[in-house]
Amino acid sequence: MKRIITISRECGSGGRTIGRKLAERLGFSFYDKELIDRVSKESGLAKEFIEEQGEHITGSLLFNIATNMNYATQVFGGNMLPLQDQLYVLQSDIIKEIAEKEPCVIVGRCADYILADRKDCLHVFIRAEMEDKSKRAVEEYHFAPDNVEKVLRKRDKARANHYKYYTEQEWGEIKNYDIVLNSSAFGIDGCVEILAALVK
Amino acid sequence: MKRIITISRECGSGGRTIGRKLAERLGFSFYDKELIDRVSKESGLAKEFIEEQGEHITGSLLFNIATNMNYATQVFGGNMLPLQDQLYVLQSDIIKEIAEKEPCVIVGRCADYILADRKDCLHVFIRAEMEDKSKRAVEEYHFAPDNVEKVLRKRDKARANHYKYYTEQEWGEIKNYDIVLNSSAFGIDGCVEILAALVK
Repeated sequence: MKRIITISRECGSGGRTIGRKLAERLGFSFYDKELIDRVSKESGLAKEFIEEQGEHITGSLLFNIATNMNYATQVFGGNMLPLQDQLYVLQSDIIKEIAEKEPCVIVGRCADYILADRKDCLHVFIRAEMEDKSKRAVEEYHFAPDNVEKVLRKRDKARANHYKYYTEQEWGEIKNYDIVLNSSAFGIDGCVEILAALVK
Repeated sequence: MKRIITISRECGSGGRTIGRKLAERLGFSFYDKELIDRVSKESGLAKEFIEEQGEHITGSLLFNIATNMNYATQVFGGNMLPLQDQLYVLQSDIIKEIAEKEPCVIVGRCADYILADRKDCLHVFIRAEMEDKSKRAVEEYHFAPDNVEKVLRKRDKARANHYKYYTEQEWGEIKNYDIVLNSSAFGIDGCVEILAALVK
């Protein structure tokens, strides 16, 4: 019986919505914003910062150095690990604790890798065709339509970099997932159906 | 309604068996050996040759030159395309014809790429953990147990090379498939269930 579902997803694929609906359907806890709230509470860091830095690598060295100088000693009591690394460690600990505690759906944040040793996890990746991702990003997430494809690719690249940096594996490579679904083929609700049937 | 299912698979993942059982379950035609028989009949080439050369690239230039010199003029009436390319063209034509004719499951042979433009296809990739692939390869396909992992990797590499050569895409990359399943997580029959439910 799978009691923990990790969902990795391309930006715009609807993976987050699929996760939320799946959790509702199964009566599982849903961790996305909720995870960020928890990390924010335990670290004192701003939610916006965790949301960005906990899943992306900006690639701006100057930004990272500046951020580390500002926060590191305040938040983590003088621990000199780079701030992003400290955030990763804290996030990992919280994800492991949540998985121990209750059936849940966790979106993003390398949860598939962090929980790879558990046998009660279903690791899911949601992808979609670019046309559908762009449409969703503009209509639902209010991205500017002008260069939406470029922005989506950039965000996926940042996710991939973050994943690679912390897991030494490739984000979106099939060997890391039990099931990969194209939401363009099955729709959001179709994906929820497929996954719910697998867990039950 | 999806009436054509293409199945790509890692060697040892049980993808072929899943394809056969799925076709039985759905009452669809199954093309694997049947496709080879058909190509053999239309080309006059030996089945063993088609089985190997129609899905793998050996990488041996000398072998390819020798083979081409022996067969090209006899079989294809003096067409000087390399033999493997001629085989690919013939296979592609037959796959397109089959897809037009009847609901079917087609295993391997770049069928996902050849039929990418059709809207009535479900493109599936089956993977599995190495431990399970090795076990299956030894027990069911009678591979020598000594270096079975190395042999499996080599066969997948040859499939990937063949796919890349003819499609200019990466074999096993998620963007080419609607659904990717880990048969180690769901079992052979579990995968058949999931796919049958999607088609119905």
